[in-house]
Amino acid sequence: MARPLSFHEDRLFPSDPATRSYARGLYALVKDLPIISPHGHTDPSWFATNAPFQDATDLLLAPDHYLFRMLYSQGVSLDALKVRSKAGVPDTDPREAWRVFASHFYLFRGTPSWVWLNHVFSQVFGFTEFLEASNADDYFDRITAALATDAFRPRALFDRFNIETLATTEGPHESLQHHAAIRESGWGGHVITAYRPDAVIDFEDERSPRAFERFAETSGQDVYSWKSYLEAHRLRRQAFIDAGATSSDHGHPTAATADLSDVEAEALFNSLVKGDVTPEKAELFRAQMLTEMAKMSLDDGLVMQIHPGSHRNHNVGLLNSHGRDKGADIPMRTEYVDALKPLLTRLGNDPRLSIILFTLDETTYSRELAPLAGHYPVLKLGPSWWFHDSPEGMMRFREQVTETAGFYNTVGFNDDTRAFLSIPARHDVARRVDSAFLARMVAEHRMDLVEAEELIVDLTYNLPKKAYKLDQRPDWARPATLRAAAE
Amino acid sequence: MARPLSFHEDRLFPSDPATRSYARGLYALVKDLPIISPHGHTDPSWFATNAPFQDATDLLLAPDHYLFRMLYSQGVSLDALKVRSKAGVPDTDPREAWRVFASHFYLFRGTPSWVWLNHVFSQVFGFTEFLEASNADDYFDRITAALATDAFRPRALFDRFNIETLATTEGPHESLQHHAAIRESGWGGHVITAYRPDAVIDFEDERSPRAFERFAETSGQDVYSWKSYLEAHRLRRQAFIDAGATSSDHGHPTAATADLSDVEAEALFNSLVKGDVTPEKAELFRAQMLTEMAKMSLDDGLVMQIHPGSHRNHNVGLLNSHGRDKGADIPMRTEYVDALKPLLTRLGNDPRLSIILFTLDETTYSRELAPLAGHYPVLKLGPSWWFHDSPEGMMRFREQVTETAGFYNTVGFNDDTRAFLSIPARHDVARRVDSAFLARMVAEHRMDLVEAEELIVDLTYNLPKKAYKLDQRPDWARPATLRAAAE
Amino acid sequence: MARPLSFHEDRLFPSDPATRSYARGLYALVKDLPIISPHGHTDPSWFATNAPFQDATDLLLAPDHYLFRMLYSQGVSLDALKVRSKAGVPDTDPREAWRVFASHFYLFRGTPSWVWLNHVFSQVFGFTEFLEASNADDYFDRITAALATDAFRPRALFDRFNIETLATTEGPHESLQHHAAIRESGWGGHVITAYRPDAVIDFEDERSPRAFERFAETSGQDVYSWKSYLEAHRLRRQAFIDAGATSSDHGHPTAATADLSDVEAEALFNSLVKGDVTPEKAELFRAQMLTEMAKMSLDDGLVMQIHPGSHRNHNVGLLNSHGRDKGADIPMRTEYVDALKPLLTRLGNDPRLSIILFTLDETTYSRELAPLAGHYPVLKLGPSWWFHDSPEGMMRFREQVTETAGFYNTVGFNDDTRAFLSIPARHDVARRVDSAFLARMVAEHRMDLVEAEELIVDLTYNLPKKAYKLDQRPDWARPATLRAAAE
Repeated sequence: MARPLSFHEDRLFPSDPATRSYARGLYALVKDLPIISPHGHTDPSWFATNAPFQDATDLLLAPDHYLFRMLYSQGVSLDALKVRSKAGVPDTDPREAWRVFASHFYLFRGTPSWVWLNHVFSQVFGFTEFLEASNADDYFDRITAALATDAFRPRALFDRFNIETLATTEGPHESLQHHAAIRESGWGGHVITAYRPDAVIDFEDERSPRAFERFAETSGQDVYSWKSYLEAHRLRRQAFIDAGATSSDHGHPTAATADLSDVEAEALFNSLVKGDVTPEKAELFRAQMLTEMAKMSLDDGLVMQIHPGSHRNHNVGLLNSHGRDKGADIPMRTEYVDALKPLLTRLGNDPRLSIILFTLDETTYSRELAPLAGHYPVLKLGPSWWFHDSPEGMMRFREQVTETAGFYNTVGFNDDTRAFLSIPARHDVARRVDSAFLARMVAEHRMDLVEAEELIVDLTYNLPKKAYKLDQRPDWARPATLRAAAE
Repeated sequence: MARPLSFHEDRLFPSDPATRSYARGLYALVKDLPIISPHGHTDPSWFATNAPFQDATDLLLAPDHYLFRMLYSQGVSLDALKVRSKAGVPDTDPREAWRVFASHFYLFRGTPSWVWLNHVFSQVFGFTEFLEASNADDYFDRITAALATDAFRPRALFDRFNIETLATTEGPHESLQHHAAIRESGWGGHVITAYRPDAVIDFEDERSPRAFERFAETSGQDVYSWKSYLEAHRLRRQAFIDAGATSSDHGHPTAATADLSDVEAEALFNSLVKGDVTPEKAELFRAQMLTEMAKMSLDDGLVMQIHPGSHRNHNVGLLNSHGRDKGADIPMRTEYVDALKPLLTRLGNDPRLSIILFTLDETTYSRELAPLAGHYPVLKLGPSWWFHDSPEGMMRFREQVTETAGFYNTVGFNDDTRAFLSIPARHDVARRVDSAFLARMVAEHRMDLVEAEELIVDLTYNLPKKAYKLDQRPDWARPATLRAAAE
Repeated sequence: MARPLSFHEDRLFPSDPATRSYARGLYALVKDLPIISPHGHTDPSWFATNAPFQDATDLLLAPDHYLFRMLYSQGVSLDALKVRSKAGVPDTDPREAWRVFASHFYLFRGTPSWVWLNHVFSQVFGFTEFLEASNADDYFDRITAALATDAFRPRALFDRFNIETLATTEGPHESLQHHAAIRESGWGGHVITAYRPDAVIDFEDERSPRAFERFAETSGQDVYSWKSYLEAHRLRRQAFIDAGATSSDHGHPTAATADLSDVEAEALFNSLVKGDVTPEKAELFRAQMLTEMAKMSLDDGLVMQIHPGSHRNHNVGLLNSHGRDKGADIPMRTEYVDALKPLLTRLGNDPRLSIILFTLDETTYSRELAPLAGHYPVLKLGPSWWFHDSPEGMMRFREQVTETAGFYNTVGFNDDTRAFLSIPARHDVARRVDSAFLARMVAEHRMDLVEAEELIVDLTYNLPKKAYKLDQRPDWARPATLRAAAE
């Protein structure tokens, strides 16, 4: 007999009764607000085709590196979890994979995955017992059965989750066919894209040659020549904007920027295109391209997102056997003050530009990022990110950033996820942690309750809409209520 | 109708009733103790001339980079706030500037400025409504009217604020005329100076040539020759000591120290004086001068303060248009263990020397500073500084420093401010946060209440007096009570 | 009349009543569990000879650098505390030294030493008044008298402290005679060793030449030839395993690892042995030897412990007068992601290897260590260490590590101490802080109480036994209950 899954309505609120009471009141103001998800990695084909998801392992376990990295760290093989390797998807029985997961679920105690998964299990699927070995089959069967119903198809879940806007991420070398299909389908869900050009900027990425080929096709430009390479970016940015994009997204190893002359930049590009790639030149080119992207933003208005500091695919053995993105990305020490100076010297006071900074190095919150964002008009701070998208991580972000940057140089929450079913859970955690933080401010008389009430709504809804320029829906997008009424 | 300004008597105390009760009791022991302000940047001419302050904008807004940097970060122009540029003070109507400030006051939610300003508004000026757009004019008028009265002249406020000692900061190239005037005025307020020689030590500072010229005048020495350059320092240090100084103050980019031979040091100086300035040589000279200053302290007893780690005037556009110190100083990663070793190897065990270290890089609290101060007899730790002079920042300082360095290797609070009216507010915050920290220690049975009671008085009053050698007033300085009786 | 020493049963528990109640309940489950001490620095001769300890100063003060570093930082001379210098033990009256300590005991307020010492005073010696100048003699006399009794001999205390396993640390060049004596004595206390080869790996350590000589003797190998140097390690590791060792221990300046070819490694070793020592070559050799040790672990199963980041003996004057290990070790910024990559690329996925990482740089908890341990099967995280072995330090460890690495990639508590009497105090603090952390999780509904109950037992007892492979006692070791029955 498994333990009852009591997913408490006061979860994540401080235990002190006065503070908890304020937290409850603040959370009540925002718990039913629509979800703004301006930065994430869901698959647009889900919403284009609206095909049902397959089974519990295929949807929840095998693609989620948060989950399989933890199990891998404890000696569980990725094959046993049905995680795709370079040889393809292992032929592990998905039910067996789910059993392995269930019997190791205790590993997630104290992690945000515990909160997210139990939210999904209880709120999305209606389970009332904690997952464990004894009920693994019941979980697997009931989830798989639910997924076969219309109520669990992607669009139905999108509506049920009360998502107002959902951004995916694509590269300039990728087609936007699924976004076109969504737009033309008449469904009306506001699914947009974001412009992530890393693969055609990073000459050290082994995927770069193929991405350049496809970039030439999608843009119709000679992308091996500097001026038309830039023109290709301009054209694709516009195509992304036509597909709803309001932001670009840049995941570089460091925050380095540069401000080369046109002649220098062209010479650097030519050298790299010819295959003369050194780490220094690749880094300088990435740095220069952040400034080039910023210059394009002056004209087309895309908000820039910069999130540096991950050592990608650190586990060489796993990269060789399983390829990229298998939970082996490790944060590195990151520097912003010198790194951003060339770009900021060029454009830091330009009212047409908006840059959202992220970090995996929490030491920069109070030392670098809050002082920068609390001064430069072009800078804002993205929420605590990736490993730090967690109750303690979010609280540290607020505690270390707010006193210098205030709340209004931050941009609300990003779920940044490809785990579609966890989106409501992640936003719920953010709303609860922000409520808890503000509740403490009120309980300690550092803020008036009226101010906290305004702030919780701003942090949840108004700031992300404003920061990501999502204030207006395009004609083809309609609120879920209208979609529901139309059905 | 604006919201009532309820500035609660329990502000900044933890909400848990037991802890709050201890905090109240501890705070009650120190809330009326005199203010010791051993490190700050108020203008000594205020106390020398005792001329009235001008208006709300001129006193509270335009000179305060904490305030205008936040508004600037949100797109408000400095001209609209009447902040001086290189072209002079903008002719903005001060009332209009105040209105802009009032309508953006919500930006300061969650920041220490919110606490400080509401303290000033309610406790110094008696306002009972929160500042907002609707009452901006009322605020402006009442503040400006109050400032015209004798009760709001600098000396009257000094007495009302119960300041026992206030240190300003001057350079060796600057006159101490205002301090002389204060001393000779018969007023009796204990306003002293501190010796800050950065401008005649940092050959990379563009103000350095003019400072050297004036240093030659104030010292009567050939400051372009190494031996008389050092003699000029010795003479000016003594003049500062005669004007009450008990400390020197060193704001270098890094904490680097050096221990060159006399021959090496002289050669380095000669090279720099001849204009052969490279970043490496300028850095080495700053490093060597910290050791030279320490050697002079052995003889004259000045306490050294070292606070490295700020990238000054990071915003190049703003530096060009508005000059230095416009809220664009950004902290950098800072290293102490290797940097201080030359000086500590030379003098680290000398009982005649006392060095107070500050940081803008909070990661050094537990890793470097507390271990250093918990071992070396010459080292003590200054309070959380600048961006970290805030409730969360102060609490992090105590939490991260105390377990290794204890309380008695710290030196109490520094307000470090040029915002004279905020001095009581800042000291009040420090007293409250220390009370809250000690209250938690007591509530968690990690300290006896008797010990906490001794400590709160030590942290507030005894430690700063001892660390800054302020145990004795000079003959010309008299307590406020005597000054009041004399009037 | 000194204050009563009220060492409260709720110490270190949060004040919030609901949280405290959970903390009490969790702590009750583990407070009487046996102590597993898999990493420490007690002297095995104590347990081999079972000779009585001498007096309060000799046992508690003079050898404890946590204590005398704090007093030294406040100007107390080491001679006054009877701390051994290069000239020998000062002839200070031990009672006088104890009086100096007592009159400065207030310096330890807020530090873990305060908690540990008051635990020892009240729980081990039965004092009921806080130590202060007025009762210094009473403390000295009563402690010294107690130490002369059989109940305070090392083995009796070992039993009374309910220690199940205690590991000491020896070098490969050192004899294991005391461990042999313990094993053969019939006493049955499970005192084991750990393999710490730093002195024969670090060519920059001035003790290295003498250590190599002794290494040749203990191993019977030509340790100046690469292949037999490695063989000497293999032989000594096996001898340590025979003396109960389950782990090796590596205290390097950095976490650097290398993976040289055999030819490169041999050439490097030959060059160093010939005396051609540069910092770069010494560092590379240390780096390579971590990989060599890991390779040997594949065969012999020793768990590797790596704890980098201390600048040893920073105070040059004190090193000259008093020698090493006098409280002047200062942590440095430490990097793991690049540093460990060579070793992890070679062996990071090998199920035969287990590495426990420690740090003195808390910034690496959430940025580097938790992400590494939350992915690599060979990595686990040691507890907060040295300066961070403290209530706040332990809490930061849990708060910053758990969300990414979970609990099961950590290994429970290490006391890491040579202060034998403080071992129960230190483990008690860890149990209380873990109880407090878990209590908050439960009170905030982030974990089920049943899970927290399982976890507190795992963190206290099961994880260290498993991580250090202490699941089985050897034949010669018997539980304290059996030893007691036998007497």
